[in-house]
Amino acid sequence: MHTYETTLRLHQTDSAGIAFYGSVFLIIHECYESFFDIAAILNEGKYLVPIVHAEADYRAMMVLSDRITVEMGLADTGRSSYTLAYRLTNQRGEVVAEAKTVHSVVDRKSGKSIEMPDSIRDRFAKL
Amino acid sequence: MHTYETTLRLHQTDSAGIAFYGSVFLIIHECYESFFDIAAILNEGKYLVPIVHAEADYRAMMVLSDRITVEMGLADTGRSSYTLAYRLTNQRGEVVAEAKTVHSVVDRKSGKSIEMPDSIRDRFAKL
Amino acid sequence: MHTYETTLRLHQTDSAGIAFYGSVFLIIHECYESFFDIAAILNEGKYLVPIVHAEADYRAMMVLSDRITVEMGLADTGRSSYTLAYRLTNQRGEVVAEAKTVHSVVDRKSGKSIEMPDSIRDRFAKL
Amino acid sequence: MHTYETTLRLHQTDSAGIAFYGSVFLIIHECYESFFDIAAILNEGKYLVPIVHAEADYRAMMVLSDRITVEMGLADTGRSSYTLAYRLTNQRGEVVAEAKTVHSVVDRKSGKSIEMPDSIRDRFAKL
Repeated sequence: MHTYETTLRLHQTDSAGIAFYGSVFLIIHECYESFFDIAAILNEGKYLVPIVHAEADYRAMMVLSDRITVEMGLADTGRSSYTLAYRLTNQRGEVVAEAKTVHSVVDRKSGKSIEMPDSIRDRFAKL
Repeated sequence: MHTYETTLRLHQTDSAGIAFYGSVFLIIHECYESFFDIAAILNEGKYLVPIVHAEADYRAMMVLSDRITVEMGLADTGRSSYTLAYRLTNQRGEVVAEAKTVHSVVDRKSGKSIEMPDSIRDRFAKL
Repeated sequence: MHTYETTLRLHQTDSAGIAFYGSVFLIIHECYESFFDIAAILNEGKYLVPIVHAEADYRAMMVLSDRITVEMGLADTGRSSYTLAYRLTNQRGEVVAEAKTVHSVVDRKSGKSIEMPDSIRDRFAKL
Repeated sequence: MHTYETTLRLHQTDSAGIAFYGSVFLIIHECYESFFDIAAILNEGKYLVPIVHAEADYRAMMVLSDRITVEMGLADTGRSSYTLAYRLTNQRGEVVAEAKTVHSVVDRKSGKSIEMPDSIRDRFAKL
């Protein structure tokens, strides 16, 4: 389990007075980046880990200045992919959203899926 | 079926050289807004139509300046909700993503789900 | 003069009920991209044209679904830079914002400013 | 002086491999929100404090995962407006950007500028 804390900012809200639904996907990716060093992957240049599936369920409305805690866990791993699950709660302990992302490990040149390198497998084993 | 065309812009890409995964959720919502007059809903002030579930499958990479065509159809309707399905293709006719959003009709004051007003039901019947 | 039309979308508004101030910078860059082929520059790989200064004056509030027309003109050119000026008007003909971006032509490897290539100079001469 | 720390995230970068220029305006506004309680202003409902001018100078490129420190100071105050100045440095102490925002205090109903309330004046006096 990895935990990330953030605050809902004005640019993540919309004129309905709540968080724009897409903001959840920004927030969970920030959580992911705070755990997994994407810059190192990109700089190494051998493979990419694109998201091949993403989904979110919205349980309660988030409003400006809400303190959001994201808990991220490993939901599944395969030969060449891993699935992360996220739970977002606000400052009152209410679950505001749950989400999931599926990441595929692909060769940077060919774009084809490859067996997950040990460095990635080891990193997510720590979750 | 409603069709929306857009171009992938620089702010929707990321330093992996492709579209940031969250951009798909911006693009499909722009498609939705080009069909359904959300401003009228918000101005009327009686109800809101928050998204309660969203998901996307990424089939191929989108890059800067790709011409994206979004086709939006009605996948399902219930007493107080409707589900929209989207297919995104690029200028070469390749499907780059498929997505779905589930919208719930709720009373603005109470936040509770209510029966879908005819005005909304009629609008989506035209899809 | 180059003209670009867009509609203010929900993700560009905020819970103050108006356009988030940063949205103007997205909109003018979309206008810029609709005139100048940045993808070609990036693919060619010789130089970059980073923005070194940007500014905006907000004249009137933009709200959801406003139809925005952007007029872009060339305000200045130097040995290795060009300045673009933008005027944004809404569907009632009101000026909602004015903005400016200064772009510097730099060598991709060294990051140092270089003399503007003819291809770029010629393109902006058409404005 | 108010200080805010953040990390440049993937969605703030673009396919040129650096921070999208608009990201600076998101980052400085997050800094502003971490000091000034905009939610309280919006909930009170008497006035708004829209940004009427914004500008940024880009000194060095920001890349994915850069640790950014924002220092925010009060540059000027008038009868009904205040100007904030920002300096962004990275983890190597390099100044990557400088920016400025001018905020006007307006009556929420009429939209006309009004004398700055003491509550706001007092808050920024603490900068």
